[in-house]
Amino acid sequence: MNTVLLTGFEPFGGERVNPSWEVVKQFHERRIDDATVIACRLPCVYGRSVQVLNGLIDRHRPALVLAVGQAGGRAGLSVERVSINIDDARIADNLGQQPIDVPIVADGPAAYFATVPVKAMVQAMRDAGIPAEVSQSAGTYVCNHVMYGLLHCLAQLGYGARGGFIHTPYLPQQAAALPNAPSMAADTIAAGLDIAIRTALQTEHDLNISGGALS
Amino acid sequence: MNTVLLTGFEPFGGERVNPSWEVVKQFHERRIDDATVIACRLPCVYGRSVQVLNGLIDRHRPALVLAVGQAGGRAGLSVERVSINIDDARIADNLGQQPIDVPIVADGPAAYFATVPVKAMVQAMRDAGIPAEVSQSAGTYVCNHVMYGLLHCLAQLGYGARGGFIHTPYLPQQAAALPNAPSMAADTIAAGLDIAIRTALQTEHDLNISGGALS
Amino acid sequence: MNTVLLTGFEPFGGERVNPSWEVVKQFHERRIDDATVIACRLPCVYGRSVQVLNGLIDRHRPALVLAVGQAGGRAGLSVERVSINIDDARIADNLGQQPIDVPIVADGPAAYFATVPVKAMVQAMRDAGIPAEVSQSAGTYVCNHVMYGLLHCLAQLGYGARGGFIHTPYLPQQAAALPNAPSMAADTIAAGLDIAIRTALQTEHDLNISGGALS
Amino acid sequence: MNTVLLTGFEPFGGERVNPSWEVVKQFHERRIDDATVIACRLPCVYGRSVQVLNGLIDRHRPALVLAVGQAGGRAGLSVERVSINIDDARIADNLGQQPIDVPIVADGPAAYFATVPVKAMVQAMRDAGIPAEVSQSAGTYVCNHVMYGLLHCLAQLGYGARGGFIHTPYLPQQAAALPNAPSMAADTIAAGLDIAIRTALQTEHDLNISGGALS
Repeated sequence: MNTVLLTGFEPFGGERVNPSWEVVKQFHERRIDDATVIACRLPCVYGRSVQVLNGLIDRHRPALVLAVGQAGGRAGLSVERVSINIDDARIADNLGQQPIDVPIVADGPAAYFATVPVKAMVQAMRDAGIPAEVSQSAGTYVCNHVMYGLLHCLAQLGYGARGGFIHTPYLPQQAAALPNAPSMAADTIAAGLDIAIRTALQTEHDLNISGGALS
Repeated sequence: MNTVLLTGFEPFGGERVNPSWEVVKQFHERRIDDATVIACRLPCVYGRSVQVLNGLIDRHRPALVLAVGQAGGRAGLSVERVSINIDDARIADNLGQQPIDVPIVADGPAAYFATVPVKAMVQAMRDAGIPAEVSQSAGTYVCNHVMYGLLHCLAQLGYGARGGFIHTPYLPQQAAALPNAPSMAADTIAAGLDIAIRTALQTEHDLNISGGALS
Repeated sequence: MNTVLLTGFEPFGGERVNPSWEVVKQFHERRIDDATVIACRLPCVYGRSVQVLNGLIDRHRPALVLAVGQAGGRAGLSVERVSINIDDARIADNLGQQPIDVPIVADGPAAYFATVPVKAMVQAMRDAGIPAEVSQSAGTYVCNHVMYGLLHCLAQLGYGARGGFIHTPYLPQQAAALPNAPSMAADTIAAGLDIAIRTALQTEHDLNISGGALS
Repeated sequence: MNTVLLTGFEPFGGERVNPSWEVVKQFHERRIDDATVIACRLPCVYGRSVQVLNGLIDRHRPALVLAVGQAGGRAGLSVERVSINIDDARIADNLGQQPIDVPIVADGPAAYFATVPVKAMVQAMRDAGIPAEVSQSAGTYVCNHVMYGLLHCLAQLGYGARGGFIHTPYLPQQAAALPNAPSMAADTIAAGLDIAIRTALQTEHDLNISGGALS
């Protein structure tokens, strides 16, 4: 029996909910294909978030790790292509830390590419009528930090697990308090994550279709 | 027993669905407060759409008429404040007509303001966690045409019915085929319309809160 | 000798400059075709702005009146199609007034359409490489207030003068203090206004081209 | 005497000009501080663009290399933080090539960070009233390709030259043909590049200020 480790984040930036955890928690112990999902909530804290994640990977040895986070302002689910080795916090994290231009791993590579099949996951979600896109940047906040930490951990362990990161729009209840912010219903996000996980489990080689950006 | 006339549109512009009708049709014969909803689909056709609407108003003498249409690219439900006496079609309608700068009613007033309580409807939707906003323009396509035709008809009949127009975002399945387009789940749109109708039925005097735009 | 009355606004909303006045003031006493421009600055104040404008029209009896204002966030020069008979202030004006849903003219028409050739002005600017568009809403702040007041005044006077309103983007120096705000250089705005004035003076019948919005 | 190598691109994607080259060519042989600028135009072609660039670096041994490219849709000058080791072309380049998910350098690092002082350059431009921002992604088209190739080349040569990449908005004449596209006048871009080059030459250690993105 394979394990899928699925993580969401606690709220940050003054929000009372984080769509990632609101949806991810519904997946705990769900069976997808021949795998079982373990859902965990990460703190929105530089350093601590990756320590928690590494501990979970150590304990569960998942075949697939998908971290999910909130990207307020985006309109679709975005599957991140790459994480970069830098922390640059526009706002303080939940412990008040605000690192600026600090490497995540002192001698780590400049970036890690996701090892999940990004294009196939985006295409499968779109085919199912769920807005999705490839993203070329996971930012420089705790989401990018966790994605980099995750891929670094899996690269170090070397047992062949795949890792990736998906950003979600705001929930409607969050957008209702903001002017003109796009949002996505929790049910739509959940349907998208289910497809993304399923696709990641079933797809060995990613699709050869463009998902690039001109700039 | 009061009647609420609720209209949606058929698809246009190459789309296969129109979120307005997908949601509005669910309301047919629904009881809201002491009123019953009659849901009808309007053609996306200049002229004909208003003729159909006028026929429905004649037959049902509704206390409230709410027309609903698709506003691709908007992120929330928008309650229109005003309709203007002009047709200016960026694309042809479903009969191939493309009027440019033609008045809707030859000697009609330059504009009609909605007679539903726009601010109260927006506020009630937001309070329920549904993204909503006041809109200062219904455009110059068939939606504005129907809103103007509706308010002109009610003004002519003079029996005290209220009229308004709500624009909806794309459905997720429509946005999935477009780059970065915001969308709203049918369930969220439906919840919003229910609240909007209920608020319109219950609110005599609109709220004295700002819903304006700087430009 | 014809007179063109060109107005800009004083700064508002915490800004230190208003692009409309920064550019408009350069036009004072400029000769365009067979007309001479008189440039004046209006206060960003409900009521007072229109009183000043009416006084200027009385004194100068211009053949053309073009009011110009700032529309922060827009990317091109926008020629307004219509003004509506409502004040709804999202922020206080420069005297601290913040009217909500108050008619501009108690028994005035619901709206006035611009009497300048909107489409021709937009097309001429675009042909000259200046980003421009038809706008379907001048908002509900002092800009719409002045546009409505202007067109009401000209309609009352009835001597055949034409009136219109153009919104400008931020200047680069304003956008430099904001995240991702579009802007336009003062030289570009000035080139656009020159063309717009020239086109308004030379064009009797507007172009029959679409400048509408779907929503 | 130091040399600054400044590159722009030829037009691509159906455009007739590329703002990067329109502005960069004005800098040829200009003296900035104690350095002289050499301005060159690169083809918008995967592979060939980097070969040309490498040849220029070999010949001129510049102390600073700044590549400039067009980012249609952005509102300000964006100084790129990082380039990633992937080509993923949404449209064909000027030779018809459209690589998908191909590494730029087969065994190269996953990414290179700019070695110019990104934050200081952005801040100096903003202080001078020019819209500018730090960008977390240079895309996956020929711009990112050249930025990666540039930083790889300088890293291999190891003589201490610094390299960076700046994206420019459309010129007004390009945006005039598009709906609602932001643009920047050539003079504003030129003023920004002058400041950016000057700042890069004068700043050893970058500013410790946030320029990050939440997502």
